[in-house]
Amino acid sequence: MATDESTLGRDVAQVNARAKVLGRAQYAGDIQLPGMLHGKVLRSPYPHARIVRIDTSRAEQLPGVKAVLTGANSPATPWGVHHKDRRTLALDVVRFAGQEVAAVAASTEDTARDALDLIDIEYEELAPLLTVDEALAPGAAEVHAGHSNLVHEIAFDRGDVDAGFASAHLVHEATYATHPQYPGYMEPMASVATVDADGRLQVWTATQSAFLVRDRLAKVLQMPASRIRVIQATTGGGFGGKIIEDANSLIAAMLALAARRPVRLVNNRLEDFLACPTSLPERITLKLGMDEGGRIVAKQVDIVADCGAFSGLTPEIMHVSAMRSDNMHRNRNVRSRARLVYTHTPPHGAFRGFGGTQMLFALNSHIDTMARQLGLDPVEVHRRNAIEAGETSVHGWKIGSTGLQQCLSQCVEALDWSAKRARAASSGRLRRGVGVAAAMHVSGNRTIGNWDGSTVMLKVNEDGRVIVHSSEADVGQGAMTMLAQIVAHELNIPLAHVHVALPDTDHSPYCIGTLASRVTIVAGNAAIVAARAAREKLFALASTKLDVPVEQLEIREGCVMVQGAAERRLTLAALAREHIWRHGGHEILVTGSWDAKTQMHDKLMGNVAPAYSFAAQAVEVEVDTETGQVRLVDSFVADDCGKALNPVAVHGQSNGAAAQAIGWALYEQLKLEDGRIANGNFADYTMPTPDSLPALRSGIVESNDPNGPYGAKGASECAILPGAPAIANAVFDAVGVRITELPITPEKVLAGLRALREQKEGAGHA
Amino acid sequence: MATDESTLGRDVAQVNARAKVLGRAQYAGDIQLPGMLHGKVLRSPYPHARIVRIDTSRAEQLPGVKAVLTGANSPATPWGVHHKDRRTLALDVVRFAGQEVAAVAASTEDTARDALDLIDIEYEELAPLLTVDEALAPGAAEVHAGHSNLVHEIAFDRGDVDAGFASAHLVHEATYATHPQYPGYMEPMASVATVDADGRLQVWTATQSAFLVRDRLAKVLQMPASRIRVIQATTGGGFGGKIIEDANSLIAAMLALAARRPVRLVNNRLEDFLACPTSLPERITLKLGMDEGGRIVAKQVDIVADCGAFSGLTPEIMHVSAMRSDNMHRNRNVRSRARLVYTHTPPHGAFRGFGGTQMLFALNSHIDTMARQLGLDPVEVHRRNAIEAGETSVHGWKIGSTGLQQCLSQCVEALDWSAKRARAASSGRLRRGVGVAAAMHVSGNRTIGNWDGSTVMLKVNEDGRVIVHSSEADVGQGAMTMLAQIVAHELNIPLAHVHVALPDTDHSPYCIGTLASRVTIVAGNAAIVAARAAREKLFALASTKLDVPVEQLEIREGCVMVQGAAERRLTLAALAREHIWRHGGHEILVTGSWDAKTQMHDKLMGNVAPAYSFAAQAVEVEVDTETGQVRLVDSFVADDCGKALNPVAVHGQSNGAAAQAIGWALYEQLKLEDGRIANGNFADYTMPTPDSLPALRSGIVESNDPNGPYGAKGASECAILPGAPAIANAVFDAVGVRITELPITPEKVLAGLRALREQKEGAGHA
Repeated sequence: MATDESTLGRDVAQVNARAKVLGRAQYAGDIQLPGMLHGKVLRSPYPHARIVRIDTSRAEQLPGVKAVLTGANSPATPWGVHHKDRRTLALDVVRFAGQEVAAVAASTEDTARDALDLIDIEYEELAPLLTVDEALAPGAAEVHAGHSNLVHEIAFDRGDVDAGFASAHLVHEATYATHPQYPGYMEPMASVATVDADGRLQVWTATQSAFLVRDRLAKVLQMPASRIRVIQATTGGGFGGKIIEDANSLIAAMLALAARRPVRLVNNRLEDFLACPTSLPERITLKLGMDEGGRIVAKQVDIVADCGAFSGLTPEIMHVSAMRSDNMHRNRNVRSRARLVYTHTPPHGAFRGFGGTQMLFALNSHIDTMARQLGLDPVEVHRRNAIEAGETSVHGWKIGSTGLQQCLSQCVEALDWSAKRARAASSGRLRRGVGVAAAMHVSGNRTIGNWDGSTVMLKVNEDGRVIVHSSEADVGQGAMTMLAQIVAHELNIPLAHVHVALPDTDHSPYCIGTLASRVTIVAGNAAIVAARAAREKLFALASTKLDVPVEQLEIREGCVMVQGAAERRLTLAALAREHIWRHGGHEILVTGSWDAKTQMHDKLMGNVAPAYSFAAQAVEVEVDTETGQVRLVDSFVADDCGKALNPVAVHGQSNGAAAQAIGWALYEQLKLEDGRIANGNFADYTMPTPDSLPALRSGIVESNDPNGPYGAKGASECAILPGAPAIANAVFDAVGVRITELPITPEKVLAGLRALREQKEGAGHA
Repeated sequence: MATDESTLGRDVAQVNARAKVLGRAQYAGDIQLPGMLHGKVLRSPYPHARIVRIDTSRAEQLPGVKAVLTGANSPATPWGVHHKDRRTLALDVVRFAGQEVAAVAASTEDTARDALDLIDIEYEELAPLLTVDEALAPGAAEVHAGHSNLVHEIAFDRGDVDAGFASAHLVHEATYATHPQYPGYMEPMASVATVDADGRLQVWTATQSAFLVRDRLAKVLQMPASRIRVIQATTGGGFGGKIIEDANSLIAAMLALAARRPVRLVNNRLEDFLACPTSLPERITLKLGMDEGGRIVAKQVDIVADCGAFSGLTPEIMHVSAMRSDNMHRNRNVRSRARLVYTHTPPHGAFRGFGGTQMLFALNSHIDTMARQLGLDPVEVHRRNAIEAGETSVHGWKIGSTGLQQCLSQCVEALDWSAKRARAASSGRLRRGVGVAAAMHVSGNRTIGNWDGSTVMLKVNEDGRVIVHSSEADVGQGAMTMLAQIVAHELNIPLAHVHVALPDTDHSPYCIGTLASRVTIVAGNAAIVAARAAREKLFALASTKLDVPVEQLEIREGCVMVQGAAERRLTLAALAREHIWRHGGHEILVTGSWDAKTQMHDKLMGNVAPAYSFAAQAVEVEVDTETGQVRLVDSFVADDCGKALNPVAVHGQSNGAAAQAIGWALYEQLKLEDGRIANGNFADYTMPTPDSLPALRSGIVESNDPNGPYGAKGASECAILPGAPAIANAVFDAVGVRITELPITPEKVLAGLRALREQKEGAGHA
């Protein structure tokens, strides 16, 4: 089939860009409804306390206040992905500073804020457990009474790890520490909830998954799912933070049900820092054995992760840290033990990279260290260990495609790697170094449920144009554009002739949502199925009218025409109209479903995803040896997304991911003081701004996955993974300081330089 | 399959009643959008004038005014169903008093109204043609230059009419006149239109057909249909007036496109009287020949109808007047000539009954007169002429079912007809009489296009409940309830477990809409198809899980269970969930389409509808011979709706129709003074109020149509048809005055009585 209209592989503007650029996209916070109230949430000031007494009577009496909720008069059903450990509003005990204790709906936001001040709470402060070590100490109090502070544990042992280490030429063990990162999306969490005359709840919300929101609302509010409609409003970024771990939509719904009025609940930035899970801090002890050529022969991992007061998605995240990176390499001897621990700190959760960032910081740092010890180029060590297409990994992952070798090649070339590695060490104040790192990620995930599919619905309108319905969320990453491109390609119509509707649980097909880099591969394939089903209907009618077999038809120039006889044609508009307006007619309204043909043998063994993405990154840094400041000079991240359906979007996502990794590695640092977030604002929580970054560069590798739509896999989530270790490795390359605990602050660099000097002086003295 | 949950045939409250009763249903006029403007329309004060000059500059300069449109700066594409004779805003010439000349959008309704006053228009008044006789007179000016005032003409001649008359025992000819009726719905026309950042238009409107609105917007605004989204807001009555003959949604859209802001355009009652087509006034000359037994042997009809200044749907309406009633009877000799004429009066159009009311007034009056002349009971004459099930009518209509004989029986019994007919004539001031009339209507209509179908889409949610999507409009008549009942019945789930979404052209399947009493039969059948498709999917999964053939399964108690082994069961919720969450899974999301198997040979010959409804009505009146006032004492209307899916709704619709017929017959009278509507308000246009009506009574006849869903046909549109002639016949029965020109005013009755007296005195003198 000719595809002269296709935009696949061409740079196109996001289909929803114009509305955003003009400020006319409707975010949840923009929604105004008649009689709408404004919600506000009162949060615990203490990391651990007993609620002795709550008196809401003064707040209730404030004119304009329409509902005041506490743990005592709001739905009690706890929620959580693996452990149902969290009540929406605290009852009796608060477990972190920032926990939701009460909520108010009032006629104005000011009144709601005033009402919070009138809620009188007597707390009895209790000793908090602020670190995993305190929480795991024998005799430690239980964060959740009756449950061990050890929330979740994973352990596996494959191959013969001990024999591997015994056979190794080089064994290295080190401990790494990673810190939590706030997603820093432009749009804070926001919901508007309303209840209709029949008691049916409708919620517009900023989310990565309208159906997961509906599901949780149904369970917590104990309402049938069908009595709830969730509409994804335009969503200004998610990065994992808007999956299902925050309570915003729940609280808005509870207030609306209590007040029987629409309620708008929009976080300000401080509230959002308190409400949103930050990424999971892990302490990782990694032991690798290598042969003389740098081939990994054994790997042992020990992780202790701090989930904070509630566990959310963290068991899954830790699971990823414990085992995903094993699948990058050919090594068959792997052993992991990972422990997740409750503390009285703000909860952690899903974040772009989903546990990969933490482990890949350790692993790439480790490979760099050991390559140096073996006198090898770390790029070469990555190459020698990299799993290849057609292989099945130690955990049963079937690698249909990998562009990791090409990613490394692009990085090497882009940075002039060999020349820069070979240059003489500088002894001046400003010293440069280069670092590299490699990464792997999934595209899809069978373990979400026993389904990793998606459905796309298409309506062909009477003008021959198409409306696409999917409930996979576009949170800025371009899902709507991807769906439009695929449908336009399959029907060979202009991109502008495809309109993609926002997810709406009443209207659009059930989908899991935007997580695990799954949307391009699962919804993209579903879109192909749906578009071909529509094309089949157009061809069937055209075949009758043009009196030729379906096989001789094609779509071009807005028409179905006979191949090689372009004068025998019918416009898509005429066919779409006639498909309705005839005996037995009906609109062309079709669904297409696709489910990954993946299979797990158990929770830990099996082919978890239909495809796997790979990435590599090389950076150059300049370290100021007087201030300890690390300046990023250059960054090139290469992303194997299988096939770049919209290259400019892939580049944008890759460099965005790189920027977020750089922020995590160098600048961002959530400060807790006595368990309280002390810098929950963009002045004090310093995300990288354009002037702190060089022009970021990125490359695309197209490995053409056999399961991907046109070969495509999830793009660019993988691109967040190698940034931090590439920088750490470059710092080491520049000044010989190995930072194992993120972020790489000037203080740590200076301390490292001081230690080096002392070591050298010590050596000199010896 | 057991149907213990079924509500079919049981009285149920409308599924959308609660929101309406509580005042929380969202009508178009209730919608508030940020930045929304208010529209107002300036209308011609003259029935015919040349627009010499329009100066909008002062209006444009009024602060708050955001758009001023006239015929010169608004879309020029004319619209209309058969004749594209109408521009949305007049250019150069106005053709009726009330025609839209300019439109304004401003920040408040008051400002918009003020702006209208600032539009300076110089008119040159022209002589109007206010009657069909003037318009048809030789040398009359053309209402539309270049087009004859004879808009449309129909003529047919079947059988041997002349031979029929020659053979007749009795031939009677008379001329009847019918007057226009305003639909008088509670909610005037209302729309809110908005344009998104990509120029896509979204319109919420009160309508009987979202897709017809979209289609007209696309054509007039010259936009692709896919660039327009039309959502049917809760609609407070239509009665034909909200199909596609008013310009409300068009003007709102034009203003929104011009102002690039949301625009709300809600008619007040006077504006609505000016904007809404009223029913088509016809002058009907009817000649019937009967044999001695009252059997019709020849029929000749001559109709002149006044469509007003624009033709809208009136060619179709006149078509119905000219031939539909022929199909009620066995007579094969029919001849009609019907002429539709432009005048400079407000346009007429679709109205409940759609041309049937006019002709059936004439026909039933005529039958009554001739029965008396033959010394027969008119009921007996109706019975002897009535077509029977299995017969094909003179125009090719295949009568699958008819309950007309039973309708007549119910009327006779309810009114104690024979006793009342037999009672001695009173000579007092107050005299009572009884009258009867019979009627027929279509359920569906093949001539709308070559399609008379519908599609229903179903989503089975994870709780085993269902969301139904259809674009057939519920305008108060109960379409949503009917769909919910059918789906609940087919899946044997409680009615409350079915939610019906409002029509939305982006989301719900393409449908024609609510007209021609088509929704129950076409959408009802489509709902059965869709529900059975969903059931099939549930059964297929259950069959695998329970390891029994599909044929042994049934749905009961919210479960799929093995027949006769109720302990082997799976909840619908579990099945719906598992249908998604499994290998190859997807939500149960199905469509069901149904198209009437009807066939037209040409425009006038063929089986036009899948089923035909029948009705009869008997009334008793009391005539005050001093004042001429006619008081309705009793009314019983029997409706053959095939099968009453929701009897209370059928009774409500039947009595509502009867009330509307009574209003038309006795009270309502649109007054034109020099072509201007003089009583466009509910104080002066006197619709019947409860205190002017007796307790209306109705009966249901279930003829079980073979094509209907469970035997159902369109209910109760037919019930508006016999009211007026039944009253006219009762008046004759009471006082011997035959009113042939509606309405039956006291003046006409007194004039009739006077004429009778003079005649008697004349006879006395002779």
